Amino acid sequence: MADLIKFKVNVDKYILSALKEDITSEDISTNCVIKEYKKGSVELIAKEDGVICGLDVYKRTFELLDETTEVKLFFKDGDKVKNKDLLGVVTGDIRVLLSGERTALNYLQRMSGIATYTSKLVELLEGTKITLLDTRKTTPNMRIFEKYAVRIGGGKNHRYNLSDAIMLKDNHIAAAGGVKEAVKAAKDYASFVHKIEVETENLDMVREACEAGADIIMLDNMTPEQMREAVKIVNKRALTECSGNVTKENIEKIKSTGVDYVSSGALTHSAPILDISMKNLKNLD
Amino acid sequence: MADLIKFKVNVDKYILSALKEDITSEDISTNCVIKEYKKGSVELIAKEDGVICGLDVYKRTFELLDETTEVKLFFKDGDKVKNKDLLGVVTGDIRVLLSGERTALNYLQRMSGIATYTSKLVELLEGTKITLLDTRKTTPNMRIFEKYAVRIGGGKNHRYNLSDAIMLKDNHIAAAGGVKEAVKAAKDYASFVHKIEVETENLDMVREACEAGADIIMLDNMTPEQMREAVKIVNKRALTECSGNVTKENIEKIKSTGVDYVSSGALTHSAPILDISMKNLKNLD
Amino acid sequence: MADLIKFKVNVDKYILSALKEDITSEDISTNCVIKEYKKGSVELIAKEDGVICGLDVYKRTFELLDETTEVKLFFKDGDKVKNKDLLGVVTGDIRVLLSGERTALNYLQRMSGIATYTSKLVELLEGTKITLLDTRKTTPNMRIFEKYAVRIGGGKNHRYNLSDAIMLKDNHIAAAGGVKEAVKAAKDYASFVHKIEVETENLDMVREACEAGADIIMLDNMTPEQMREAVKIVNKRALTECSGNVTKENIEKIKSTGVDYVSSGALTHSAPILDISMKNLKNLD
Amino acid sequence: MADLIKFKVNVDKYILSALKEDITSEDISTNCVIKEYKKGSVELIAKEDGVICGLDVYKRTFELLDETTEVKLFFKDGDKVKNKDLLGVVTGDIRVLLSGERTALNYLQRMSGIATYTSKLVELLEGTKITLLDTRKTTPNMRIFEKYAVRIGGGKNHRYNLSDAIMLKDNHIAAAGGVKEAVKAAKDYASFVHKIEVETENLDMVREACEAGADIIMLDNMTPEQMREAVKIVNKRALTECSGNVTKENIEKIKSTGVDYVSSGALTHSAPILDISMKNLKNLD
Amino acid sequence: MADLIKFKVNVDKYILSALKEDITSEDISTNCVIKEYKKGSVELIAKEDGVICGLDVYKRTFELLDETTEVKLFFKDGDKVKNKDLLGVVTGDIRVLLSGERTALNYLQRMSGIATYTSKLVELLEGTKITLLDTRKTTPNMRIFEKYAVRIGGGKNHRYNLSDAIMLKDNHIAAAGGVKEAVKAAKDYASFVHKIEVETENLDMVREACEAGADIIMLDNMTPEQMREAVKIVNKRALTECSGNVTKENIEKIKSTGVDYVSSGALTHSAPILDISMKNLKNLD
Amino acid sequence: MADLIKFKVNVDKYILSALKEDITSEDISTNCVIKEYKKGSVELIAKEDGVICGLDVYKRTFELLDETTEVKLFFKDGDKVKNKDLLGVVTGDIRVLLSGERTALNYLQRMSGIATYTSKLVELLEGTKITLLDTRKTTPNMRIFEKYAVRIGGGKNHRYNLSDAIMLKDNHIAAAGGVKEAVKAAKDYASFVHKIEVETENLDMVREACEAGADIIMLDNMTPEQMREAVKIVNKRALTECSGNVTKENIEKIKSTGVDYVSSGALTHSAPILDISMKNLKNLD
Repeated sequence: MADLIKFKVNVDKYILSALKEDITSEDISTNCVIKEYKKGSVELIAKEDGVICGLDVYKRTFELLDETTEVKLFFKDGDKVKNKDLLGVVTGDIRVLLSGERTALNYLQRMSGIATYTSKLVELLEGTKITLLDTRKTTPNMRIFEKYAVRIGGGKNHRYNLSDAIMLKDNHIAAAGGVKEAVKAAKDYASFVHKIEVETENLDMVREACEAGADIIMLDNMTPEQMREAVKIVNKRALTECSGNVTKENIEKIKSTGVDYVSSGALTHSAPILDISMKNLKNLD
Repeated sequence: MADLIKFKVNVDKYILSALKEDITSEDISTNCVIKEYKKGSVELIAKEDGVICGLDVYKRTFELLDETTEVKLFFKDGDKVKNKDLLGVVTGDIRVLLSGERTALNYLQRMSGIATYTSKLVELLEGTKITLLDTRKTTPNMRIFEKYAVRIGGGKNHRYNLSDAIMLKDNHIAAAGGVKEAVKAAKDYASFVHKIEVETENLDMVREACEAGADIIMLDNMTPEQMREAVKIVNKRALTECSGNVTKENIEKIKSTGVDYVSSGALTHSAPILDISMKNLKNLD
Repeated sequence: MADLIKFKVNVDKYILSALKEDITSEDISTNCVIKEYKKGSVELIAKEDGVICGLDVYKRTFELLDETTEVKLFFKDGDKVKNKDLLGVVTGDIRVLLSGERTALNYLQRMSGIATYTSKLVELLEGTKITLLDTRKTTPNMRIFEKYAVRIGGGKNHRYNLSDAIMLKDNHIAAAGGVKEAVKAAKDYASFVHKIEVETENLDMVREACEAGADIIMLDNMTPEQMREAVKIVNKRALTECSGNVTKENIEKIKSTGVDYVSSGALTHSAPILDISMKNLKNLD
Repeated sequence: MADLIKFKVNVDKYILSALKEDITSEDISTNCVIKEYKKGSVELIAKEDGVICGLDVYKRTFELLDETTEVKLFFKDGDKVKNKDLLGVVTGDIRVLLSGERTALNYLQRMSGIATYTSKLVELLEGTKITLLDTRKTTPNMRIFEKYAVRIGGGKNHRYNLSDAIMLKDNHIAAAGGVKEAVKAAKDYASFVHKIEVETENLDMVREACEAGADIIMLDNMTPEQMREAVKIVNKRALTECSGNVTKENIEKIKSTGVDYVSSGALTHSAPILDISMKNLKNLD
Repeated sequence: MADLIKFKVNVDKYILSALKEDITSEDISTNCVIKEYKKGSVELIAKEDGVICGLDVYKRTFELLDETTEVKLFFKDGDKVKNKDLLGVVTGDIRVLLSGERTALNYLQRMSGIATYTSKLVELLEGTKITLLDTRKTTPNMRIFEKYAVRIGGGKNHRYNLSDAIMLKDNHIAAAGGVKEAVKAAKDYASFVHKIEVETENLDMVREACEAGADIIMLDNMTPEQMREAVKIVNKRALTECSGNVTKENIEKIKSTGVDYVSSGALTHSAPILDISMKNLKNLD
Repeated sequence: MADLIKFKVNVDKYILSALKEDITSEDISTNCVIKEYKKGSVELIAKEDGVICGLDVYKRTFELLDETTEVKLFFKDGDKVKNKDLLGVVTGDIRVLLSGERTALNYLQRMSGIATYTSKLVELLEGTKITLLDTRKTTPNMRIFEKYAVRIGGGKNHRYNLSDAIMLKDNHIAAAGGVKEAVKAAKDYASFVHKIEVETENLDMVREACEAGADIIMLDNMTPEQMREAVKIVNKRALTECSGNVTKENIEKIKSTGVDYVSSGALTHSAPILDISMKNLKNLD
């Protein structure tokens, strides 16, 4: 996420909004003891093992409060960190260090938690050709951060939102009057740059979707046996995606189904944070 | 959260921003199959046992898309729900039902997850006089939703943010030149409507904070034994709060310490969601 | 554009901003002569032949000023209108009719101008299998309106923006070190829901792009002969798009090239408006 | 438009909004091939003859993405440029050059198109004392750019919006009960810093408006003969403005009417763009 | 200010921002005792004599919190009210009445204070032909409210802001190289719809300004004698405005100078509020 | 207010909004005479004796227009200044100096007016132990500036807004069914970090509030005798605050009542400005 354009155009507004959530008038505790600029530094330290993610967001949070804050980082997004690792040092106005701490850590801990959880699922899929995907089950106003964290954890992103891809679910199919009609409607309406994905609930629908020319076929809540069968039916005419409450605990049984992709909402909606803290503030004046 | 003022002044902006995150131009999938207003209904169904929370936010999400959407709810925030319970029915333009679904559920599932997790910790504290508190370790741009969910789960809120209360941590104390000086600085600077909390790391600091006139004393990362001792030292001159990685797994040992409050970041940063879904869309035209 | 969700989430903000551009404090001229609510109606009349487009935006403009304004429309987007046709009647507070007129017409005239121009190019392509596409050469802050107008005029939309599709141009290819490498990088990085388009400048690049697995091949500024050749090389392995200063005047010569798509920036950047006016204000009190 | 205040207070918001329209999450194509800062330069080249306008807006677009981007310009707004002229060189992070290109050009091409078209009409009026004016028929959310372009093209600006001047049209006059009453109402209500313009449709109204003390008299859709007569009636007691579908094709016949001003909506609503492109990206690392 | 357009386009944003200033998360005091909708009414009562102003803003504040709130008003802006007069009754959700009270009153009291103060100065000018004007010395983010209040108090508005009129002060004149040059520059640059005002400090400048064709001549900090002389020099060739610390206490001596206008910053920057309160809340359930 | 965080997070938005209120398109007067960057300086001079306040806001206003503007200040907030004192010198683009002047002064004059008025009341309380407090009777969208000014004038701040403290007024008490019930409800609902204040109108309520455990007791509109009695009843069990139309004219009689705090709305709603001006612009090129 070292991409300045993303920050300027799509990320800063969220960080600034988070800072305003935490500081509606001022940081009273800090302002009562520190009345003016006072230089200091503070350390960023891991308190658990995991995959670090969100270091640029962490850095940017302090810079948005004061662009002269210096954030030295000893790791980069995607690195494995161990409990007690010194991840970085932040130097600047002590008031900035104290007032920005919580917001910066709230981002960093959550993003690292997702990257860590994702990396564990990716590991469980090793040896297969299955690619792990996220979903749109992200925390509101956190999508750009959470989708990035999935990628850093070794997963890949499914569609970003309702506007950049087409997924025809049961309700769309019903509204169109059938799989074939729905796919045709999508081809008529949408830009040709988007692939068309169809959600299927049984093997008949898989067959229909294939014939209608779907680019991607989602196998929703099917058993491993059904999925194996579905993959045979598809026979490379489309990509296949397994979906439905996939977690660390149950991903094993998908490994031999032959699907191309498996998507998991848990990556973003239920990963616990990675514990990280800021310690050892030093007065540098 | 049935408080309209809160929505108008402080909540709608987050929901609208979340909707914009998911719909940057239009919901292509829905618009390719449904070209105009078509009345329908869809059911809201629990897929796990837990404490439901966020129903008004769920409702508001659809209303912000189309104020004529009707959301009938059969439960209220704080109710225990069981897997397969029918929680409500949403009736309106099918396009609104489909396009708003994910954002509405992302809020509802997360808030219910927090309420459920909180209620479990509250249960573990039953029989004691200890009150469970949240922290500022909330997901960015989710505080107003997450703090509410803690309350619905049976917990209570610690300070809302940096502007509505004073907490003097080690760094503030160091900057002021001691506990006594920090408390005095806070009394000089801050409005007298705020209580003053001091974070202490050992029994000497507890003593000092008491004498300096702190209203609340946080016992940070102390052992149960230290906490018992601290409570004796304080001797009702101030309120006491136990803090430091409190989770479902370790809360037991705090029960006999005699502290007034225990705060837990896990309530908001690591509770998994409660699974809830929207099913059975019916065409009503 | 009768889609309420789009208005609420992505369109209203532009219309409101346009109204603020025209009314920074108040409509002085109107307020000096009309001091309070006064009911009236005014007619919307075509002053040229063309394809009407933007009627819902026109309607919404008045509703944003006063939700009780009634806009009766006798045509719908995409209809052919003739000079002097009565398109609709707006009834409400005369101050709203006067103050909203210019902004409402500025949208309607521009959108109708684009739909009209597009429909002419579509006509010129009749008898071929070529689909007419727009580009990202839209007026700043007008994209959602202008892309819609192209569709209403009978064209189709190319990608919406930089975030919802992949187009690898010369510079991307150079940065990656070749067509093959660029396509591979895109497959690694981007979500699998997006097709990959490669811009080619000669037949060698066309070949390379095909072999690298591009989904769409843009033929940039090629002669009709080169395009015919390119289409043969591609041989249905990918979709082909002709691009480069296509206008009403020169589209003829593309017709026999066999390309699947032709894109034209002129649709959105150089179509003149369609003249439409509001006349015959009547006092209804 | 080299006026920093204007950018900070009233322009940046539009450019930023346009960038967000084009980049809702990230520039996928660029980010898949360029992972980090890479210095480069690119040339800005005219592809048609015309009057260049909007160079500061063009420059600012890149600076808003990355303030270290360097934009060297070899022409200034208002200069005549020829096809193939090198207008400038942009140097900076290649990702910024690629991601900002389209938005920067969309502004520059449109503004130059308007300046070019305006300059042609101004030329046609040479030898007369008639001043060419724009109108409020601007593209929504483009007024500040388009009115500036008219000035650069040699025209002058009519009122900026509904709040900074008074124009009494037929409907205002009807509401007031006559020309005299309308002018009186305007004098009573509005600030004395504004001149009062009255739109007239026949010579009787011209007479009335003069006698009522109008400062400016608009002659709406009159024939050249009527205008000549009107100018005589006014006899320097007020300024006169000719209005009504004035374009390049028909402006000739107004030249001998003796009016002071002629306003043309076509300047802003129907000028085609001036073709300009960015070429020859060079890697500078 | 009963103009809905003004509210929708330019006023609501300020009121909403003021409400957010007062309610950053929720109204704790109200929410702890009233958990759900409870109908009630409360009276609006004058506590001083004066000119009431801002009743629509007062009403709108409650409507923005809950559109079903009913505000019955027994007076209208500009009416003289007496201590203890019942001005209105607000009926609706008691939580809305309590939470909106302070913001609504803050607007109403301030606007009424300005209207009251203005009306006193207007009275002091009775019997003369001098018109009282406000200035741009308004409270930040209160201009639209304060300028309106001046008008309601019987004064008139000077220019609204820097963008809707031209005033050439000493510094502009110096930059241009003289009064004549400055007026010429203004005529060249600005739209012809604006009058040109020149600030003069002595009689020579008055003469020069007249000859240069200024429309309005401001006599800045001149003595009554100088002003009388200036008016003679101007001799109806331009309008004259007296300016410079005009207050209730010193306006008398201006009366016989013959100037057309007198402007006073005190109207908006130093008028004390008019005391008004909300009392007698009744439970209506 | 030298706290950069406050500016970035909570203040800049107000200043920028005030600048936009004054410059809706451009500063015409300045732009017609100064076409490009021209270096100059201007002096900030007191025109009355008083307490200066808002110097950082003044400085920031120019920096927001152009970050290279240099503002040298010879006084700091809280200093006493005398008529004709040179307070500072602003150096930069003359257009910035001219266009920012009014907004910068509007803040500075108002904040200094409040600080000056507050300091006078504080002086009148000298020799007592009574602390002077402000209220929420601030000008809309000016609270963060006005509360700061009170502090600079020697007063202290009461609660910031409805979300950071609890004050139970007659209506809350009525809704709860009594003082005791209301205090209990507040303890149940609100965070324990807030003190609870109860507004009392007679001595019985004072007694009740004490017994219910209120932390602060407001004595509303009581006579000095009643207040003396109330202080006795409270007998240090809670803090006491005197409230009710306290001004410079009547504060004397409160001095001997023994209350801890006295709050005055007049500090923020009726203090006249302190006159300050910008003079002696010098051309530095």
